[in-house]
Amino acid sequence: MKEYKVAVLGATGAVGREMIKILEERNFPISELLPLASEKSAGTRIVFRKTETVVKAVNENSFRGCDIVLGAAPNHLAVKFAPYITGAGAVFIDNSSAFRLDDGVPLVIPEINPDDVRSHSGIIANPNCATIIALVAVNPINKLSKITKMTVSTYQAVSGAGAGGITELLEQTAAVSENKTVAPAVFPYRIAYNLIPQIGAFLENGYTAEEMKMQNEGRKIMHSPSLKVSCTCVRVPVIRSHSESIAVTTESPVTPDDARKAISASCGCAVCDDTQKLSYPMPITAQNGDDVLVGRIRTDIAEKNTLDLWCVGDQLRKGAATNAVQIAETLIRS
Amino acid sequence: MKEYKVAVLGATGAVGREMIKILEERNFPISELLPLASEKSAGTRIVFRKTETVVKAVNENSFRGCDIVLGAAPNHLAVKFAPYITGAGAVFIDNSSAFRLDDGVPLVIPEINPDDVRSHSGIIANPNCATIIALVAVNPINKLSKITKMTVSTYQAVSGAGAGGITELLEQTAAVSENKTVAPAVFPYRIAYNLIPQIGAFLENGYTAEEMKMQNEGRKIMHSPSLKVSCTCVRVPVIRSHSESIAVTTESPVTPDDARKAISASCGCAVCDDTQKLSYPMPITAQNGDDVLVGRIRTDIAEKNTLDLWCVGDQLRKGAATNAVQIAETLIRS
Repeated sequence: MKEYKVAVLGATGAVGREMIKILEERNFPISELLPLASEKSAGTRIVFRKTETVVKAVNENSFRGCDIVLGAAPNHLAVKFAPYITGAGAVFIDNSSAFRLDDGVPLVIPEINPDDVRSHSGIIANPNCATIIALVAVNPINKLSKITKMTVSTYQAVSGAGAGGITELLEQTAAVSENKTVAPAVFPYRIAYNLIPQIGAFLENGYTAEEMKMQNEGRKIMHSPSLKVSCTCVRVPVIRSHSESIAVTTESPVTPDDARKAISASCGCAVCDDTQKLSYPMPITAQNGDDVLVGRIRTDIAEKNTLDLWCVGDQLRKGAATNAVQIAETLIRS
Repeated sequence: MKEYKVAVLGATGAVGREMIKILEERNFPISELLPLASEKSAGTRIVFRKTETVVKAVNENSFRGCDIVLGAAPNHLAVKFAPYITGAGAVFIDNSSAFRLDDGVPLVIPEINPDDVRSHSGIIANPNCATIIALVAVNPINKLSKITKMTVSTYQAVSGAGAGGITELLEQTAAVSENKTVAPAVFPYRIAYNLIPQIGAFLENGYTAEEMKMQNEGRKIMHSPSLKVSCTCVRVPVIRSHSESIAVTTESPVTPDDARKAISASCGCAVCDDTQKLSYPMPITAQNGDDVLVGRIRTDIAEKNTLDLWCVGDQLRKGAATNAVQIAETLIRS
């Protein structure tokens, strides 16, 4: 079996660390793992397959000999290094939003559009975390009847802002218990015991960049150019796992039972929906798993041909790192 | 000016304490305040207008001579004592859900349907907290164009489950920081750093009792029997103030600017909506206030004639105690 030299760009961040963990868990065929980060984080030691590896400072020449580069770095670094990655002949599987909507860049959730991987020209984009979690949950419904519209409210964990977001929540929470205050740094306001109804910059139409991703990326991934999605994204004081309340409108009616059967039979998601046993998805049950848990499935009482559901997925895993590694797996199979 | 003998039933709970505070703040014309509670809580000392008052154990004869009884007790106690309250000639302004949908029992938000107070036969019901907060926010839009449908996802604070809910969140959070666990008692699962997508018992249609209140109570309060509301209610680790993400569909289109003007000009709500200044409602800004804060107002991109908004209100105040005291004020004026 062929083995690959795989670099992780942004290896010391929350998503980068998770990527390395998942490469090991899934036994990805690696000949050499190259963890890369900024000058500041270089020298950090990480353990991969029981061997300590030192994180190297990234530069334009870092990618020589690499087959695959998993990107967990911010947009500006993804843009800066992309030409050097593709120039070195590696495939860049990038978790930033920089290239997601570009023509010629496949945007892939392997459970939904694995074949799109084939049409890459060096870059494959990993979708937004909240988008991955929502689409993995609703895709089985889309197969029963085409989804025309979704109304989504998200409950997004602080891990979505990286390791610094987690630290900020925990430190602020401790401070509140001592009647102290900690000035916000990662988030615009205090997140401890609070909610912030803003993720990403505001756009002219009043939505945020994060909110528009669900429609823009959803259309591309689902091959559904007329899909309509209205989304409200809210940061909540949860450590990891994003949750979403979704009303899904389809061309023809789908019963909750049929939706449950379809979700149960699909990869990447699991039904957690027994109201008699108070069984429904929660962040503390979804975290550290790869399945998007789906529950509270019911016929919407206000809108025709609509199901309501509640889904929760580990944002660092299926919402980011796992999906990227799955793209790499799809790539080497294709 | 006439003064009234006012009893508070459930005076030691989170809502009861807030009622007493608000009666004082709003200088309600009281000749005598009678704080009542269960045998267990009797003897508790509370301060009203700088005078210490002892909470008495409630019984069938407690209400003699009372003009108004503010109810902050659970449904079964509201049902048990209602006949004695009305029998004693007092008006029962009840925060429980026991009588809300009964014919002959007005269900009142004074900013919306103050005149309904007049048709009481001894009992006036205080609406559900999440319902009050949503309707105060959208009522100004309803005046511009009749609301036909709402899709609501709530982010409800632990105070909605009473004082015990607040204690449980704080204790569990402290335990998590020490890697300990505290078994849930008030909530069905851990609420610290978690979300629970269930408030109230599950009904046959898959919605919870709490979720159906928004439509059932909304129709009665708004005098809009065909109003359609689909709601998903979620408990979040926030101490007080409920938040709601709402898509409001109207008969004809309403612009965000017109909605902002109407909300600004209305009592009980305030616009907090300047995306350039990152100004939007949050639990930590709404708490301890009486206004429902409304922001993130924008034209929905997925549905015709629809506005999206995000509103936050202090659940213990406008969502419960303030509204009850306002009903009493409306009653004595009528």
